[in-house]
Parts: sequence; structure tokens; C-alpha cells
Amino acid sequence: MKIDILTLFPEMFDIFNHSILGRAHEKHIIDVKAHNIRDYTLDKHKRVDDYSYGGGAGMVMAAQPIVDSIKAIKENNKGKVIYLGPRGIIFNQAMASELAKEEELIFLCGHYEGIDERAYEAIDMEISIGDFILTGGEMACIPIVDSICRLCPGVLNKNESFEIESFSDGTLEYPQYTRPVEFRGKKVPEVLLSGHHENIRKWRRLKSLIITKEKRYDLFQKLTLSKEDLKLLKQYENYAEEDK
Amino acid sequence: MKIDILTLFPEMFDIFNHSILGRAHEKHIIDVKAHNIRDYTLDKHKRVDDYSYGGGAGMVMAAQPIVDSIKAIKENNKGKVIYLGPRGIIFNQAMASELAKEEELIFLCGHYEGIDERAYEAIDMEISIGDFILTGGEMACIPIVDSICRLCPGVLNKNESFEIESFSDGTLEYPQYTRPVEFRGKKVPEVLLSGHHENIRKWRRLKSLIITKEKRYDLFQKLTLSKEDLKLLKQYENYAEEDK
Repeated sequence: MKIDILTLFPEMFDIFNHSILGRAHEKHIIDVKAHNIRDYTLDKHKRVDDYSYGGGAGMVMAAQPIVDSIKAIKENNKGKVIYLGPRGIIFNQAMASELAKEEELIFLCGHYEGIDERAYEAIDMEISIGDFILTGGEMACIPIVDSICRLCPGVLNKNESFEIESFSDGTLEYPQYTRPVEFRGKKVPEVLLSGHHENIRKWRRLKSLIITKEKRYDLFQKLTLSKEDLKLLKQYENYAEEDK
Repeated sequence: MKIDILTLFPEMFDIFNHSILGRAHEKHIIDVKAHNIRDYTLDKHKRVDDYSYGGGAGMVMAAQPIVDSIKAIKENNKGKVIYLGPRGIIFNQAMASELAKEEELIFLCGHYEGIDERAYEAIDMEISIGDFILTGGEMACIPIVDSICRLCPGVLNKNESFEIESFSDGTLEYPQYTRPVEFRGKKVPEVLLSGHHENIRKWRRLKSLIITKEKRYDLFQKLTLSKEDLKLLKQYENYAEEDK
């Protein structure tokens, strides 16, 4: 996966030199490069922003350096141009999976109060990370690129590429436990120590369903529950009822 | 604002040395420090993760280093302990505003397949950045801390602290334009050059409403439209009708 990022702060993307993506970089599985939009401005003072027509306190990123930097990067990257902006579609795991299938992508990070509307002509797609305001598009680009890259073949190793994860089947993940069996008076649930794979699977599935129902009812409502799911939930509710 | 972050990758938070937050750091308006959870493990090989009881490919972060690192940090930080995790409430601008009122906060970044369930006893609140999977909690912590810190008094300067921004009143922002008046054949809308403040205000409001309706109907439905909003939208629709 080849990713080029256009930003006013390329040094922020040094973050991808660490941890899992750092390792994927070294192995040349991913190739993420950040480029400074300022290098493409035709302004003699190297400015990339200016006041907003019509007034207002904020500065706006000018169209010229954005459009020209995208044009230059496109010579070596044929991917979609994705702008991280507040009008975008909210990013989610399905979008991460779709974008992970691409071979090349270009990301544009805005700053200040936004970009000149006329720069949109060079943009293919706008993505938002959520309904909150950031100091710059870099802060949204980092988790989004991370989320896409971790799905690229070879980025995660066997121990990391756990199939049953939150969101991947629409539920939140079940509780996890590791050593010791007893931690300051709290024990690991018996079933997990039983070695009985079928019981463990059922326990985890039930926990996933309960946690999703309690914590994210919006996700729970969207689930297509299997016969087994309904049976597990029914048994649990009867049990909880008896417990009262 | 004093923020302590618990992570296995403290170097990732060097990102806050740049741009707006870097400046706020230098001015001692914010004090963001990252601490390595690994420094608190009692394991002789300095391990912080282990296999999951009940099986499964992923590694789980052990309870001991998490609980003990939180305990140590709490000696100098009395803030809420916030875990960046998939079961959390989805972060939004209202939450950013609430958390920006706090004087101290502690963030916990998980890694691998998650944290041992027994570590939850040390956590006050779980926040999620959205419905997608990341290589680690750091990737969610960075934009969330950014979003909170930019609201702290003195962090943004006058040119940056624009009041009318996307999400702050439930609408998306209107289009912005800066110099030149004509960019490669595309002109700035006349009204923005008119100097007529009232017309500019109305144009921007209408554009905000239209963009929100088109791009994020979910947000548009939640708006309480004023009499003026309804009038502006009605005029626009009549105009669009005539245009056909």
C-alpha cells in the first residue's frame, strides 16, 4: 500500500515509524510518505493561508498550493484523493476494509478554518473522523491511515491478527483475561480455564451480545441474531431473573 | 490543563510538540506527559502482555502494570482515568467541551487485543473514537487530547478561535474562500466581496443549512430551525424550483 499525505506538518507523521506500522514500513509492506504543502505555494513569502472573504476571524488555506501539490503527487500515485474534513462521511470499519483494498491513496490534511472551496475540484472523497473539532486534519489522518494499513496483508502478524474483534461482526468484544488466574482477589471466570472449547465459545458470544446491548444499543439493534444467539440471551435472562 | 497518558509507546506523543499544541506546551498552558506502562510491570522480563485465557490468537495486556501505573500517576494527578476502548461512549464535541473544563485528566491507551477485564477497576470512564479498529489506543488518544486541549483558554489565538465552526452549533461550516478573487476561472461568490455584512451572514447561514442537509441529514434532523432559517430555506427552494 502506497500512501502519500499532503500536510503543513509532515513531521507529525513520524508517528508511523513506531510500533506495528513502523515494522510494516521497515518490511516495505506499506510506504507512507508525508509531503509539505508549503513546498508548492507560488506565494513569494511561502504563505499558504489568508483571510476569509466576507470576514471572520479564521484563516483559510488557499486553493493554489493544495491543487498544485495534489497534481504533483498524482504523477507518482494514481490513488483516490481523500480530504479529511468535517463534511465527510463518518469513517468506520467497513470503509477501512474498502480502502485497504486500494493499492494507492492520497490524503489531504487541512488546517486553520478550512480550505478554499475551489480546492474541492482536486478532491475525490471527503472523510470525517467524527463530530468533533481538531486543530488540523493530521489528527484525523493518523488514526484513519492506521486503521486502513493494519488491514493490509502482512502488516499484522499471527498474534495480532485476531479475527474476532470489536466491530468486525457488529458486536463489541467479549472480556479478555490473562495471567495470573487470581489478581488481587479477582479470579478469571472458571469456564475460561476449563479447556472446554464449545463452552468457551458460547460464553464469549453471550458476553459479546450482553456488552453490545448494554454499551451500544444502536449496534445491538442492527445485529441479525442467530437461533443460538437468541437461545443464549434467553437462558441468560432467565438466569438473571432467578438471581433476583 | 494537566494530562498524563499511560502508553506502551510514549514516543508517539512527541506529536504534541508540533503546531498549535506544541506552542501551548511551550507557553505552559497545557502540560501533556506520556508515561511508559512497561516501567511499572513486576514481571522480571518486563513483559506487559500474555496469552488470553480460553484461547485465541491475540495477546492481552495484563492487569498488574495497568493498575499499578495508574496508581502511581494518581499521586500527582487527581483527574478522571479515561480508557480509550471500543466499548466506550463515542467521543463528540459536547464531550470535548465537558472534559476541557477539568484541570487534570489521565488517559490509558490499550494495545494488543485489549486489557485484562480486571484492570477496569482502576478506570473511571471509557471513550471510543468511532466504530473502527486501531493498532492501539494511542491512535485514538491523540485526536481526543487534541480536541480537548484546543478548547482550553489560551491555547488558540485570536485568528484560530473562530466561533462559527462545524459541529459547534450542530451544523456543518459554510464554504470558505480566500485570495485570489479568481482562481483558474473560478470566482469567489459576489456576496462575499460586497461588504454587506447582513447579506454575508444570511448567505453563510443558508449554505451551512444546505450543506448539513445534503451531507449529514442526521445532524440536520436534530437542528432547531429558527424562523429566519425556515425563511432562508424556503426562498432557496423556490429559487431552485424556478431554476428547473
